[in-house]
Amino acid sequence: MPVKEIFNNPNSRWMDDDGPETGVIISSRVRVARNLKDLPFPHLLDQEKSENVVSTVTPAFQNEETFREDRFEFFRISELSPVERQILVDKHLISPDLLNKLEGKAVVLREDGVVSVMLNEEDHLRIQCLLPGLKLERAWEIVEKVDNGLEKTLDYAYSEKFGYLTACPTNTGTGMRASVMVHLCGLVLTRQLNNMLNAVHKLGLTVRGLYGEGTEALGDLFQISNQITLGQSEGEIIANLNSIARQILAQERSARTVLFKEKKEMIMDRAWRAFGILKNARVMTSEEVMRLISDLRLGVDLGILPAMPLKLLNELMVMTRPAFLTQLAARDMEPHQRDIFRAELVRNGLSGLDGLAG
Amino acid sequence: MPVKEIFNNPNSRWMDDDGPETGVIISSRVRVARNLKDLPFPHLLDQEKSENVVSTVTPAFQNEETFREDRFEFFRISELSPVERQILVDKHLISPDLLNKLEGKAVVLREDGVVSVMLNEEDHLRIQCLLPGLKLERAWEIVEKVDNGLEKTLDYAYSEKFGYLTACPTNTGTGMRASVMVHLCGLVLTRQLNNMLNAVHKLGLTVRGLYGEGTEALGDLFQISNQITLGQSEGEIIANLNSIARQILAQERSARTVLFKEKKEMIMDRAWRAFGILKNARVMTSEEVMRLISDLRLGVDLGILPAMPLKLLNELMVMTRPAFLTQLAARDMEPHQRDIFRAELVRNGLSGLDGLAG
Repeated sequence: MPVKEIFNNPNSRWMDDDGPETGVIISSRVRVARNLKDLPFPHLLDQEKSENVVSTVTPAFQNEETFREDRFEFFRISELSPVERQILVDKHLISPDLLNKLEGKAVVLREDGVVSVMLNEEDHLRIQCLLPGLKLERAWEIVEKVDNGLEKTLDYAYSEKFGYLTACPTNTGTGMRASVMVHLCGLVLTRQLNNMLNAVHKLGLTVRGLYGEGTEALGDLFQISNQITLGQSEGEIIANLNSIARQILAQERSARTVLFKEKKEMIMDRAWRAFGILKNARVMTSEEVMRLISDLRLGVDLGILPAMPLKLLNELMVMTRPAFLTQLAARDMEPHQRDIFRAELVRNGLSGLDGLAG
Repeated sequence: MPVKEIFNNPNSRWMDDDGPETGVIISSRVRVARNLKDLPFPHLLDQEKSENVVSTVTPAFQNEETFREDRFEFFRISELSPVERQILVDKHLISPDLLNKLEGKAVVLREDGVVSVMLNEEDHLRIQCLLPGLKLERAWEIVEKVDNGLEKTLDYAYSEKFGYLTACPTNTGTGMRASVMVHLCGLVLTRQLNNMLNAVHKLGLTVRGLYGEGTEALGDLFQISNQITLGQSEGEIIANLNSIARQILAQERSARTVLFKEKKEMIMDRAWRAFGILKNARVMTSEEVMRLISDLRLGVDLGILPAMPLKLLNELMVMTRPAFLTQLAARDMEPHQRDIFRAELVRNGLSGLDGLAG
């Protein structure tokens, strides 16, 4: 599919449900921060020099040996529409920060959305890989391959003592941030979430909402990521997060089992009501959709609802956000009009599941 | 069907939707209070004398000329189970007051539930007719026929000056109470209900909830009845209530039209959500069922939802009340168990409408 389809098709590779443990761990992400040796960090760049970053980095993707099989496309953020920019944020392909000031900002996308490289965000390069399920090692392999490929051409700012140098010292060293997006409805419903969050903080990890710092935990979805980039190898960071993700996974599974045993009717009722409302409502906010999809996801995972593709639910989460709705409707809409269009999209999305109704 | 079926079958004749204006006016009821000349009013009767009432009245139903075509059955309230007693209340065939003290209390039921005669409630006889839709004149004709038939045998307490004498002076004269059960969701949603209630009070009528004085307006259902029994003929009482019922009907219809014009999405959303929840929930209180059926009823009336028999909705309202649930389950249940069984009944009841889902 043409790379441009990223803006029209709600699907991204990370939404597939063929990854390990996608019932709880929706996706795994690894990104590294890199900077070019001879240029100041982005916040010190004038427009001309930020263009230098772009014109230096983009040819590096032409490296036949590394990128022969991958189809990458380059987008200047200033040349995207506001809706298209927001779609990239909603799909987790760029950070909201990349949209703060548009000059010199760009992104290089692999057509399947698995790899994205932001230019002139906080660092000159942010190389990201996003995969479905618990696949941190694989994500790191992919990032490493892209990173090594680019390094054949690019001269990175690197210190023997500190490792990769970054605009913010919290990234210095490996420049790596690894994270998992987890659905913790069981811990939320059994009121164990805060205990878990405290434990995770003590282990040096950060927990944020779905769209990064400061966003709320929409639909019981959380991002858990490493905080330390220095003094550990990339492999150690990945192994550590992987191990903690598996512990959280076990806790969430145990909470779900307890709920199903001790509050079976309540859980069945939530799941089927969510299904009935999503399939029938005519006006829905984004927050309500996220909340109901959380209930649906739990119902599917516990076998209360008949199997339905988690991929569909992931897509619905993204396509019912305001930007994607505007793109799909091909017109600007008042919030109330969006709520009506959103409900229609959800009904259509679930219409293939007609035979499931209780 | 055998009269005993009244306790097993949720249907009663008044729930049918073949009456006029059943979209707003669910049923019409007329009852008259009568007392036997030679016995004190029921609250002054000892057990023996209240038995006299029963043994005097019941043979009067043997009057071949009047009752040849009707099948009546006599039930001593004390011989009914608590659940059966409550079912008669839920079906509006007896008043809750009849259950206050059981000795000497009885009811004579016509097999279709259209006519019921309470013995030793506040008066010796309360002859009631209950029909679907706006049918006050017809209900009065039926009551009059039964009343006349009984009077051939019975000697009523009657004064040339005051008319029929009753235990409470508010019934003296005609002894008549006529009422309509109306669904005023439009007036509730447009916040015009209180204005209407005030106007109705000024016209000398009383407005009560679904199960008489002191009950709340479950599911936006109200009973509107005359307060004056003296100084007006039966025909005048009926004509007056009929005329006011038609005005309320017009106001309710106009409120619904305004809602459909000005808040179409909100109304569609309410109706379809109600449908989705009723068809899918696993735990439901009686109050929630009543509230959702109100939304469903409005949706059907406005053509938002595909046509479904109002009779089914009326039956669901009655069969999901605690007494009927217990009868259908054939076992005692904790409230939470009832909520689960209720949700199951509702899903089964609506399962014939599968093709309707949006």
